[in-house]
Order: sequence, then C-alpha cells, then structure tokens
Amino acid sequence: MRCTGDIEVRELEELAINIDPIQAGGRLTPEAMKAVIAYGDGYSVCDNCRKPFRLDQIKKPPIDAFHRDLARFVHMDEARVMPGARRGFQAVTGTFVGKGDPVLLTALSHYTSFLAVEAAGGIPREIPKDGKNRITGEAAAARIEEVTREFGRPPALLFVDHFDYQFGNEHEVREIAKAAHAHDIRVLYNGAYTVGILPVDGTELGVDFVVGSGHKSMASPAPSGVLATTKECAGELFRTTQAKGDLTQRQFGVKEVELLGCTLMGATIMGMMASFPAVKERVNHWQEELANGKIVTDALRSIGGTGILSEEPRRHTLTRVDTRDSFDRVAQTHKKRGYFFTSALGERGIGGVIPGATKVWKFNTYGLTRRQCGHLASAFTEIARENGLPVG
Amino acid sequence: MRCTGDIEVRELEELAINIDPIQAGGRLTPEAMKAVIAYGDGYSVCDNCRKPFRLDQIKKPPIDAFHRDLARFVHMDEARVMPGARRGFQAVTGTFVGKGDPVLLTALSHYTSFLAVEAAGGIPREIPKDGKNRITGEAAAARIEEVTREFGRPPALLFVDHFDYQFGNEHEVREIAKAAHAHDIRVLYNGAYTVGILPVDGTELGVDFVVGSGHKSMASPAPSGVLATTKECAGELFRTTQAKGDLTQRQFGVKEVELLGCTLMGATIMGMMASFPAVKERVNHWQEELANGKIVTDALRSIGGTGILSEEPRRHTLTRVDTRDSFDRVAQTHKKRGYFFTSALGERGIGGVIPGATKVWKFNTYGLTRRQCGHLASAFTEIARENGLPVG
Repeated sequence: MRCTGDIEVRELEELAINIDPIQAGGRLTPEAMKAVIAYGDGYSVCDNCRKPFRLDQIKKPPIDAFHRDLARFVHMDEARVMPGARRGFQAVTGTFVGKGDPVLLTALSHYTSFLAVEAAGGIPREIPKDGKNRITGEAAAARIEEVTREFGRPPALLFVDHFDYQFGNEHEVREIAKAAHAHDIRVLYNGAYTVGILPVDGTELGVDFVVGSGHKSMASPAPSGVLATTKECAGELFRTTQAKGDLTQRQFGVKEVELLGCTLMGATIMGMMASFPAVKERVNHWQEELANGKIVTDALRSIGGTGILSEEPRRHTLTRVDTRDSFDRVAQTHKKRGYFFTSALGERGIGGVIPGATKVWKFNTYGLTRRQCGHLASAFTEIARENGLPVG
Repeated sequence: MRCTGDIEVRELEELAINIDPIQAGGRLTPEAMKAVIAYGDGYSVCDNCRKPFRLDQIKKPPIDAFHRDLARFVHMDEARVMPGARRGFQAVTGTFVGKGDPVLLTALSHYTSFLAVEAAGGIPREIPKDGKNRITGEAAAARIEEVTREFGRPPALLFVDHFDYQFGNEHEVREIAKAAHAHDIRVLYNGAYTVGILPVDGTELGVDFVVGSGHKSMASPAPSGVLATTKECAGELFRTTQAKGDLTQRQFGVKEVELLGCTLMGATIMGMMASFPAVKERVNHWQEELANGKIVTDALRSIGGTGILSEEPRRHTLTRVDTRDSFDRVAQTHKKRGYFFTSALGERGIGGVIPGATKVWKFNTYGLTRRQCGHLASAFTEIARENGLPVG
C-alpha cells in the first residue's frame, strides 16, 4: 500500500511483533504520535520563542521545564536535547578532545563514538573486553596506565557503554569511572540502550556526561537525544559563543557553540516531550521486561545447538544468539536456504530479523507483553521442531 | 485545547494566516504529514537497511534515489541529508577549516555560520554590506585581499547567503564565488531561504557547497536539511572513517565522519522525501510568490511613515519593515500599547508577528494565496486607518 508518491506505507509495527534489535525502544507512544501531528511543521515550536531566543528556554510549549526534567531523570545537573546520541558524543569530543589526544573507548564501543573521536582529531584506544565480553574497571585501569605511558599524558576522555550494542552486556561503569577519575579523566556514559528504558543515575555512577538516544530508547522520532552533564563540566560543554562580527560588532548572545544554537525545533522535541511521562514510568518496569525476555532466551537455549552469546542471566532485552549449529544447519538443505527462518517467523507474525540471517544475530524483546514473548518463544521452538532440530 | 499531557495543541496554521518570517517554507505538505505518521517511530527507515549499512544507500523506502534527486535539484554532484543546515555548515568547517584559519562570512550572515566557524576554531571575518544592505562581488574581492594580508594566507572558506535572514535581500553569489575562486577559496552557499522555495543552480552560481534547510524551506520536520557539493570536494567532505580499534582491529566501513554515520533515520527524512515532489514543483512558481508578496509591501508602503527596509523591487517574500513612524506612534498612546497591532491582526485572522512588535519587524508571505495576501494587505491598511494613520 502506498503512503504517498512512491513511498510504501510502513506496517511492520501494525502487522508483526517486531524484534529488531535497535527499534524496540524508539517506537512512538500514542502521545508522541499526537504531538508529532500537532507539531509536524518545520519550526513549529518557535511560535512563542522570546528573548534570549533559545530552544531550552521556550516556555510554551514547556520545553524549558522538559530540560530540567530530563536532567533530573538521569540524575545530572544540566541537560540539552541533541539530534541523536552521536551529536552528544560530538559535542563532548569537540569540547574536551584536542588534535592528537588519546581517547579511551572499549572493545565494544559503537562506531559513532569512534567517529566522534575521529571528527575531533583524537586517537582512539580500546579497553579490552574480558572472556565474558564485559568491560571491567580493572581492564580500564590497566589500559589507562598503558595509554598514559604511550602518549606521555592521560587520555582526554573515556567512553563507556552501560550496555553495549553487540551483546547487550552490562559493563562496570562505576568502577571504570572511578579508575578514570583517579587520573582526572572525564567519563562519557553512553546510554543509547539505557536512558529511557531502565533507570539511569549518572551521579551515582559517577560519570561526567550522560548521553541518551531519543529514537533508540525514548520513544521519539529521529534524530533526537539527550546530553546531560555536571555543574562542573556544563560551563565548558555548553559554553556560549564568543564569536563577533569584526565589522558589524555583532555578537550572538547565549547561543551554545557545540549545539550550534537550537537543536530540535519541531516534531522531534515534541515527540520526546509527549513520550516523556510514559518513558519516566516505563523505566520502573525493567525487571518485568527482563522476565519477559527470559521466556524467549530460555526457549532459544532449549533448541539443540543454539547458544546465547550474551551474558546470562540477561540484564538487558537485547540479546545476541548463535544458531549456526541449529537454524543455520537447517538452512544448508532447506529449499528456501537461509530465508526459511525469517519466512517461518513471518508466518507467525514476527518481524525484525534480517532476511536470511541464521548464523549469529540479535533481537530485542523490549516493550513486548508477556503473551507476545510467549508467542515468540513458541515460534522459535516450533520452527525448530518442524525442521527436525532437537528441543528440550 | 490539550494535545497530550501538559502540551497544548498547536493551532496557528489552522486558525490564522501565519506570516512568521522563518516558518513559511517549513509547513508540511499533506504528503509529508502522511509519511511522518507512517514513519514516526525512531529508527523506522532501517527495516530494510542492508550492507553497507548507510542511510543514503537504503533502497526501500527509496532514500538512495532521493539523495540523487536532491543533488540534481540543486545542480550539484553529490548530496547528503543533514540534521539542519547548521550541521551542513559544521561538516564543511570541520573538513576545511583548521584552528586559527580565517573564514569569510558577511555582515548579514546568520549566527549559525559564525558558530560553525567557531566550533572548528576558525576566525570569522565579515564582508561588509553596501548602502543598500547587499553583499557585492567587489566587496568580497576587497575583503579577501585584506584578510589575506592580515593572516598571510587566504581565507580557508567563504560563506555567502543567497538571500539573507535579516532583509531577504539577494546577494551577488556568482560574483562573490568568482572572486573567491580567483584565490582558490572554497565557497559555501547558504540556501536556508532558497533551496526548496526558488530554483537553485549551484553549478551555474559556481559554488562548492550548497546547504539547504528542510524545516525552513523544504516543507519538512526539524531538524532536517541538505548538504550538496561537487565531485572535487565530495571526497574530502564525505570522507569515510579511517578509525580503527587498536585492540579489536575493528574498522567502520563506509560511515562518513562529518555525518557521524547516518543522519536522519525516520520521520525527518521521510517528511523531506514525501514533500519533495511538491517542493520541486513549487520552486517554479516563485514569480507568483513575489507578485503576491508585492500586494502586501505595496499596502505597507502606502501607510504614512512606514518604510520597507528590504531592497525593492522585492526578490524574496521575507521582508523587513520599519513602522516606527506609523504603528509604533499609535502604540505610544494606545491603551493596549504595542499589543494593539498584533491584537488587531489577530482579530483579522493573522498570526506570526511577535506580540508587541511595532518598530522594526519581519514577515514572510511565502505560500500564501493571492487572496490571502489581499486580505493581509487590507488588514494592514485598515488597522492604519482605524488608528488615524494616513494611507494612500
């Protein structure tokens, strides 16, 4: 069905249980959909923008209050909305990383953090993962010393994912931050997979920056996100422009350099705001989400030859699974080849797995009901049985 | 009326003729609204993202074809969508401006271009405007020589607005680009007020970068925009990442550094795409837009003491007007003070003027019908007559 012009309507969320690994936390709430319709037009939130003319100070709609709420939500002092988590990374590297400065990331860091370091001219160095694909405080401490020796100075910044995008494993944020602070290294907490789906307390974790993604985990349209920080770092990170027109003597008031002024001027910010009450509430139900997810991982593990590559017990709903010795074996001789699997899932109303994927793949049960997870679990075991794989 | 939670519904476009200077070109088309509803969810366009995993190469929805169309639309070789024109500026300064490099802007440049220069560590220098508030090729040539003497090297980049945000005046882009190229200076064309509302031919103008704004002039949700360039500059501007994980040896494929990978992953890109057929068509009706706008400027000029500060004849629908000797005089003694004017406009179904503004202000008639412009013109003269100002 066409939506308009040559654009097909998107029906995935209406027609299927979507287990795509990156889409789960970004589905709009009904409230966000209403706000997006009401505020779809370009500069829609600027109707009542008054001096000093800055997005985070607009009172109607209450964007100013939302900024304060956002900071409180992640337990930091100041927050700004950004066009995606990656632009939050870039604001931090643009402020604190100089050309040639070493920056610590991890062996599981997302590519966008590498790009943000590269854009600032920094030199990325990784903290290794352990045998269980976890980043520990100990590994961070060792690597800090190593990199400090290599460069003759400590890293300018350290990125750490609370949960990484590859395994959905939890990493030792608190211990890593402690190790970094012992060397006066600032710590950026990448909460793309946490802020908006589980409780995040940046102060308690002891990090300097909390970055979250609106379209990944806050039920918001893309690109959107949040960058929060401490009182200590806010002055530098959110510094206002010093630029001046040399002929006109123009100055540009309170516009923030790394934000390039205002960031999200319409549908995106309003979607974030409208979803926010539901988002604040849903983080309290994380344990239920994990319990639902366990139904699915238990089912998958019961299929002979199938391995859960993510840490267990699962502490996140994003899970990496290895079906090379189960579903991929079936694919070798099935007349549909690898497509048999996604096709069989499709027949059961399940979408979001890359067509043909039967080797190592990821899924996310976030936001599914217990019943939907039960259906998903049964679907996996049924498909296994139908194709002669041992279950149980 | 509440839209959701504590968010009021936005009704300005439904209840009034909106003459806000920055909102006119960013009103969504009905097609964009449909696409925004269908693709509102966070990472909605990623359903069919396949290798090499990059937004501008997604075939379904046809985002790849849209990128080619966009480049053709502004007569450049390559284009990318960006989270706003300002992020396009930043990509160019991030690539071509080094710390301490002089960069030429104009006495009428928008603050976001200053911020993009500042973020890259460049030193802004302005090209002066002439007595008619226009930037000429001659002024650019003189300033290039001056700045080259000052810094011992030519500017690293030159920004020029085709039409500026203050007066909506047209500037000598072609001549300025010629002067810049005589010194091997790259030229960035700021088309925030042109791309999407009037025909733009970057090749014919001889510029190296064309930047446009989706939410300002392409009937799209914010933040969105386009950054287009030539074959010669595309390699550097759209360079792919060289970053590498030093332990894991991970590399990050074709991800583009200045874009930080993908830019607009849902409602924003789909809004741009859905509006694009209408946008391509509407640029052909620019002369009608100017003719409609003239009805309004003629009416304003007929009110004693009112001056059109923008160049005339008008070549843009954004106009700056001086009513210090007309409506502001009324305000001195009116019981509503300055609010009498916006209140009288409001009674006539006209919105988008800052409440209380009666001195120097801007409006934009873009997208209004001839009849709406007639109504607007009559409203201004009626309000003048009712308040004892001479008309005619």
